[in-house]
Amino acid sequence: MKKNLFDDNIRIEINTDKNSKLIVKENKLVMAGPCAIESYEQLLETAKFVKSKGANILRGGAYKPRTSPNSFQGLKEEGLEILKAVKKETGMPVITELMDARELDKLYEVADIIQIGSRNMQNFSLLTEVGKQDKPVMLKRGLSSTISEWIGAAEYIAIGGNQKIIMCERGIRTYNDYTRNTLDLAAVPIIQKETGLPIVVDPSHATGVRYLVKPMSIASLAAGADGIMVEVHPDPINALSDGMQSLHFNEFEDLMNSINL
Amino acid sequence: MKKNLFDDNIRIEINTDKNSKLIVKENKLVMAGPCAIESYEQLLETAKFVKSKGANILRGGAYKPRTSPNSFQGLKEEGLEILKAVKKETGMPVITELMDARELDKLYEVADIIQIGSRNMQNFSLLTEVGKQDKPVMLKRGLSSTISEWIGAAEYIAIGGNQKIIMCERGIRTYNDYTRNTLDLAAVPIIQKETGLPIVVDPSHATGVRYLVKPMSIASLAAGADGIMVEVHPDPINALSDGMQSLHFNEFEDLMNSINL
Amino acid sequence: MKKNLFDDNIRIEINTDKNSKLIVKENKLVMAGPCAIESYEQLLETAKFVKSKGANILRGGAYKPRTSPNSFQGLKEEGLEILKAVKKETGMPVITELMDARELDKLYEVADIIQIGSRNMQNFSLLTEVGKQDKPVMLKRGLSSTISEWIGAAEYIAIGGNQKIIMCERGIRTYNDYTRNTLDLAAVPIIQKETGLPIVVDPSHATGVRYLVKPMSIASLAAGADGIMVEVHPDPINALSDGMQSLHFNEFEDLMNSINL
Amino acid sequence: MKKNLFDDNIRIEINTDKNSKLIVKENKLVMAGPCAIESYEQLLETAKFVKSKGANILRGGAYKPRTSPNSFQGLKEEGLEILKAVKKETGMPVITELMDARELDKLYEVADIIQIGSRNMQNFSLLTEVGKQDKPVMLKRGLSSTISEWIGAAEYIAIGGNQKIIMCERGIRTYNDYTRNTLDLAAVPIIQKETGLPIVVDPSHATGVRYLVKPMSIASLAAGADGIMVEVHPDPINALSDGMQSLHFNEFEDLMNSINL
Repeated sequence: MKKNLFDDNIRIEINTDKNSKLIVKENKLVMAGPCAIESYEQLLETAKFVKSKGANILRGGAYKPRTSPNSFQGLKEEGLEILKAVKKETGMPVITELMDARELDKLYEVADIIQIGSRNMQNFSLLTEVGKQDKPVMLKRGLSSTISEWIGAAEYIAIGGNQKIIMCERGIRTYNDYTRNTLDLAAVPIIQKETGLPIVVDPSHATGVRYLVKPMSIASLAAGADGIMVEVHPDPINALSDGMQSLHFNEFEDLMNSINL
Repeated sequence: MKKNLFDDNIRIEINTDKNSKLIVKENKLVMAGPCAIESYEQLLETAKFVKSKGANILRGGAYKPRTSPNSFQGLKEEGLEILKAVKKETGMPVITELMDARELDKLYEVADIIQIGSRNMQNFSLLTEVGKQDKPVMLKRGLSSTISEWIGAAEYIAIGGNQKIIMCERGIRTYNDYTRNTLDLAAVPIIQKETGLPIVVDPSHATGVRYLVKPMSIASLAAGADGIMVEVHPDPINALSDGMQSLHFNEFEDLMNSINL
Repeated sequence: MKKNLFDDNIRIEINTDKNSKLIVKENKLVMAGPCAIESYEQLLETAKFVKSKGANILRGGAYKPRTSPNSFQGLKEEGLEILKAVKKETGMPVITELMDARELDKLYEVADIIQIGSRNMQNFSLLTEVGKQDKPVMLKRGLSSTISEWIGAAEYIAIGGNQKIIMCERGIRTYNDYTRNTLDLAAVPIIQKETGLPIVVDPSHATGVRYLVKPMSIASLAAGADGIMVEVHPDPINALSDGMQSLHFNEFEDLMNSINL
Repeated sequence: MKKNLFDDNIRIEINTDKNSKLIVKENKLVMAGPCAIESYEQLLETAKFVKSKGANILRGGAYKPRTSPNSFQGLKEEGLEILKAVKKETGMPVITELMDARELDKLYEVADIIQIGSRNMQNFSLLTEVGKQDKPVMLKRGLSSTISEWIGAAEYIAIGGNQKIIMCERGIRTYNDYTRNTLDLAAVPIIQKETGLPIVVDPSHATGVRYLVKPMSIASLAAGADGIMVEVHPDPINALSDGMQSLHFNEFEDLMNSINL
């Protein structure tokens, strides 16, 4: 493999409120929040709660990739405005997904970490674009990506000059029908060995089943992951997307108590 | 499923030399040519040969999606120029892949069919863009796409007003290690039943093994496919991409003799 | 690969009524009948019908491998008795599945071809046992078997002295959710090239969907398969197993008209 | 699902030297030893070492399921004799694989836990046979078994009266090519919830890569697994099977230090 395409000491710092910083790898990342931004109230309530329990990054999608054009596609620009307001209100750094290079300018203003989603892992134009930016990029593994394809995608970003890449294992597609995807936890030590890049795990998408999020979060950190990304919603049953895998507030609290970082 | 999102009598006509037309579904499509356009000579020689044996559409990639940024990425604009010249010289309609909406104008000028590749099957921005065009779009199935995700992607195109969609089964990712992918031939009758759209099969990518292209082409047409897409190269061993699955000229001739359309 | 473990000119002859024989590879095999033997009447009616339409081998399970111990497990010895009676009545050679070496003696008396099912493809004790017999064995591909594991299983039979092996492609397990399995039709030319053994295709199990059986049967024969195995039932809706994929009589008739062997 | 097919308070006790017992679920199981028993010296040396580091069950295969009939098939009866001698010498309880009901009597004499391997997970005759025994059975998950098929297999054992079943997750077959299989760690909480049965994880087979065994062992226990099964060999490079995934003695020591049970 090709570890040496990435520098040995990539340092990723994320600004948090005022003058403190998160240092990726030194600080475990806990990215939490709703799948989709639905309203200012929904996001603010969630942000305050997850922050109070120890989450250090707020997640929330403004642009949502959905299988059908008839499904809710996210609040788009309005969602970014809400994210900006909640970021200001709570002081939490935020991560949100970029789906189109033409939305980069608007998104860049708000995002502390730019997320590339699974469906765009091999959208090489988009990778090249974020490779020119100076903000950290979180690169989710493709739905059925091999390790070397995933590393190849990271190289498309790095080759442009941006090595602030956080890999995200989010489950792969298999024949399993109990879970939405199959969490491939071996990817954590593999990516660390082959690239030296930090890697977080998204147990919400990896399993798609609420009661599995806690044990898989614990296992991910035990395997050495640099953080987790978890969906939390004030009212999962009525969430506009991914309700089945979103944690209730009390479940998130229980999770945070279990992993005591 | 959701057949009724597509009109019942979508008619796709493709202009060929002068005043004749190919009518998709009435005429079986045989798209042939090299994986990547490498030079004017390479493309012209191939085009003349495949046309003389009965191919009715020329394929050739100017923009190539490759796993690594260090692999040959296609001749890009120069490739489009070559394609334009060979199209003029031979009178063959051409299909070529669009990877970025910003390249659409240039590609639109040359392409008779715009190809969306497997890696971009859920690049919803790109789908939306080709949905606004008046040219036929060939939508390749994603690497591990389900039938309903694939149909969902076609809906992103159709919802913009462009129903001239040709589906392309190109194999799915499985544990199989003898072949590059696994041809899912049942997709042919399924797509026809669920959407009414035409569907072609790409046995070159589906198998990745030269000797399997002929039997899988014959089987595809026997299963009712509306056409095939086959990689042919004057010198497969030295091809800049996909040499292992490209047919030699004499193999393509043998294939065309076997399927006598 | 390891073609030379099998002799070049293995000749498999199957006795049919009186003094005629089926010669595998020279005659295309059409194995048809119910998934499970349910009664004398059910089997006889099906046998007479499929024979009248051109089927040349009767299939029917006496011992049924089922996921749950609470599902119908087949009529067992009583099923073998029924099979024997119907064989005598119709003169059709029969194929039925062996699940346990201790049932071999009883089954040997009736079966013209001994079937090893997918779940037992790597039951090496059972393979060794049928390798000592002088009757043809049909070896179904395992649920997620690679080509080389499948050939390895055939070698366990051949090494005991029995080279009368018919391979059966019956679909592999993938993430596909529209079909029960994914028919891997490339296995047909691959097995023929790598082993020289005959290979039949089971489109009923490969797809699990009734309307797909006909196009996949046609495609299989077009790809060069040495035969097909199809489930047919007088009343599929009330079948004790696999009703969703069993053909009605008129559908089987339509299929036979389409493949005119 | 069908939790209630298993009693709520199945108690599995395994006799160890003299008058102490292992209680499954109360004591974490650490099964360690070579893939295949190769000689008395090899097994004894390994057993003494792994015991000294905290392993509480000795593993070792006498009958080995191998893809090709030409590969080493295990020492068979001689292997059982060696296992018996080493068990006596070290006082460790032992687990070994049963591949054929006809070998049950001999194996029963030696084994404290009877292992059913992945390839036989749906060998329903064999499951029925061990369901009549009074010894614990470890049921490995099939190569591409769903959760409900795996539970169905456990039911075949339980229905015969033997509920002393230990489930073993050993990785599933996917398109991944870096690892031998893909560890499906979510199976741990799923099996515990759906059946109440104990479950151990085999990271050696799940990954097939030596350096991944330690992080996956730690993660498995963090996810709540009732134990692990690990391959250890005095000289992995020269092992007769599975050398690439077997730990050196010092690696096993390091692992045991990391999990401090």
